[in-house]
Amino acid sequence: MNYNLNNLPERTSKPRTEGYTMVMDKGLSLREVEDLIETSGNYIDIVKFGWATSYVYPKLKEKIALYKSAGIPCYFGGTLFEAFIARDQFADYQKILDEFGLEYAEVSDGSIEMDHDIKCEYISTLAKQVTVLSEVGSKDAAKIIPPYKWIQQMETELEAGAWKVIGEARESGNVGLFRDSGEVRQGLVEEILTQIPEEKILWEAPQKAQQVWFIKLCGTNVNLGNIAPNEVIPLETIRIGLRGDTFSHFL
Amino acid sequence: MNYNLNNLPERTSKPRTEGYTMVMDKGLSLREVEDLIETSGNYIDIVKFGWATSYVYPKLKEKIALYKSAGIPCYFGGTLFEAFIARDQFADYQKILDEFGLEYAEVSDGSIEMDHDIKCEYISTLAKQVTVLSEVGSKDAAKIIPPYKWIQQMETELEAGAWKVIGEARESGNVGLFRDSGEVRQGLVEEILTQIPEEKILWEAPQKAQQVWFIKLCGTNVNLGNIAPNEVIPLETIRIGLRGDTFSHFL
Amino acid sequence: MNYNLNNLPERTSKPRTEGYTMVMDKGLSLREVEDLIETSGNYIDIVKFGWATSYVYPKLKEKIALYKSAGIPCYFGGTLFEAFIARDQFADYQKILDEFGLEYAEVSDGSIEMDHDIKCEYISTLAKQVTVLSEVGSKDAAKIIPPYKWIQQMETELEAGAWKVIGEARESGNVGLFRDSGEVRQGLVEEILTQIPEEKILWEAPQKAQQVWFIKLCGTNVNLGNIAPNEVIPLETIRIGLRGDTFSHFL
Repeated sequence: MNYNLNNLPERTSKPRTEGYTMVMDKGLSLREVEDLIETSGNYIDIVKFGWATSYVYPKLKEKIALYKSAGIPCYFGGTLFEAFIARDQFADYQKILDEFGLEYAEVSDGSIEMDHDIKCEYISTLAKQVTVLSEVGSKDAAKIIPPYKWIQQMETELEAGAWKVIGEARESGNVGLFRDSGEVRQGLVEEILTQIPEEKILWEAPQKAQQVWFIKLCGTNVNLGNIAPNEVIPLETIRIGLRGDTFSHFL
Repeated sequence: MNYNLNNLPERTSKPRTEGYTMVMDKGLSLREVEDLIETSGNYIDIVKFGWATSYVYPKLKEKIALYKSAGIPCYFGGTLFEAFIARDQFADYQKILDEFGLEYAEVSDGSIEMDHDIKCEYISTLAKQVTVLSEVGSKDAAKIIPPYKWIQQMETELEAGAWKVIGEARESGNVGLFRDSGEVRQGLVEEILTQIPEEKILWEAPQKAQQVWFIKLCGTNVNLGNIAPNEVIPLETIRIGLRGDTFSHFL
Repeated sequence: MNYNLNNLPERTSKPRTEGYTMVMDKGLSLREVEDLIETSGNYIDIVKFGWATSYVYPKLKEKIALYKSAGIPCYFGGTLFEAFIARDQFADYQKILDEFGLEYAEVSDGSIEMDHDIKCEYISTLAKQVTVLSEVGSKDAAKIIPPYKWIQQMETELEAGAWKVIGEARESGNVGLFRDSGEVRQGLVEEILTQIPEEKILWEAPQKAQQVWFIKLCGTNVNLGNIAPNEVIPLETIRIGLRGDTFSHFL
């Protein structure tokens, strides 16, 4: 760090086993990726190519190589998995994971209806090929899943082989874990935490107030995702009590 | 594209006759323009220099040349036209179009009061010099133009020589076609579409929900404008049903 | 400027004595700083490294040097000052100002409780070392300071040696000078202006509507701060009546 400040909370460093930051890249240029690595490479543990932006992005292999050279693995957003499933192209999906040299994949059912047993089978199958993140929660704001079901799904998906489970929020942060207004469904999160080990969960929390809420609840090294590239540095300061929002919390 | 997905809606490619994406540049650096071309050049049909940002931007000729080299024409926002008109400097305006080698110009009356016949005369005059986009709708949220007047104005402006008519929304997307809240004035749009050919209209739709709404109504290849540079890739995925918002719509 | 428009309001140029634009940098890469200087260097008078982002930013000295080479001084956000004070490390704070060659510093009490006499002592002490900006207003939305106290504090802080006083708004623009909704506390601002010379105040105004409001009240060359890097060019157009929002105001 650039200077010494006493009594800061302890932040993990790479390679992390907790305190992950997952960044959503929805179309950064190669130069922007280089810049992101320069400013924030030490604070980014994994990058998601948002939903199916990887389909239209023109220099995908170069981008994956850039991130990899900085020790940052990438994965395709869950919507892409669903796009292949909805077209009965799962085998093609498995092939492109290899073709692009990806070591992680997301399994989700945010936009399609899928029997939960089938979802767990996909997790189990993919877990033999890559490290699997599985996502719980709908992208449909009207579709409220009760807490006990979140827990049930998270448990069975972890048993099926998921490395971590993701709590859904989208880029906007107004579905899944959150209400329309972006407010956290606090009861839901607290109930989940009574049953699922915190380190197995990656909370999507794109809005600052959401990040602050999780950090106050779970501490500096909570796993957070869907962070915008230019919010990684700000998030680091929130994690260690160096932004107004958590300043008093960590004193 | 980076991999094969079956049964996607057909997206036009450049040079397009429908499915235009107009991007608003409100001060990108030359390097950012290079990056935008790299990631999104194939998806951008035309660029608007928002309102009169071209007045204060320091490397305007270099920027225009950069876009041109990528096959992307540029034009000055309508507010600049109005700034010249309000100062009785129309002749100067015509000169700078030539000086900067522009092949498109916008005629609007969003910030000034102008007799509609006069507006049509400007369209007609400029149409001899460049390709004219004319804009309908006020930048004043309090000034509601009824649907029949939108239609009347669009019709006469097209007759006067406008290549396309633009539905006003501003950078923020909360006037003209939209309510204060950003919600689409649905009845207005639907009534317009009963009278004006869809391919003659460019809908300003800066917010994601607005883009989704128009794509669901008019299809993949609707003309959309005021797209932020970093939203071009996301917009492409929405157009072809590869983002949650239109995923089911195109299955 | 790129072309001639008659009867525009007169905008000051660098080095300015009024009409300052203070930009908030919360983690720009070196290349982004170069780009910002290219597009907006003439419009930026001073840069603040938001809150304590300078702690985690990896190339701080290079960045300060870049800005300096463009004639733009930098300073650390007030929250960093408070982080040192809260840890009883004021001497360390003074040392790092020298170590990084900074000529400006901010004194604030937005996140901590501090006796106002003590605050003024810090201002007085630091004013012997650097040029001091002092900030009035809390980061806590619930903590409303009445106008007479704002005035009292601003007066005594200027007497203590502050070069200018800053009206608090945060990055988001929803505390201090503004209501939760972002709306200006108009009565507060107007009352302040009856007692404190306008040129001694730097108004934080991150939202466009806030910038427009201050420009309409105080004119083209009002001092504004917490401007996002990509909003500097747009702000210049608002200052001179070349964006819809102030178009009629300056005609």
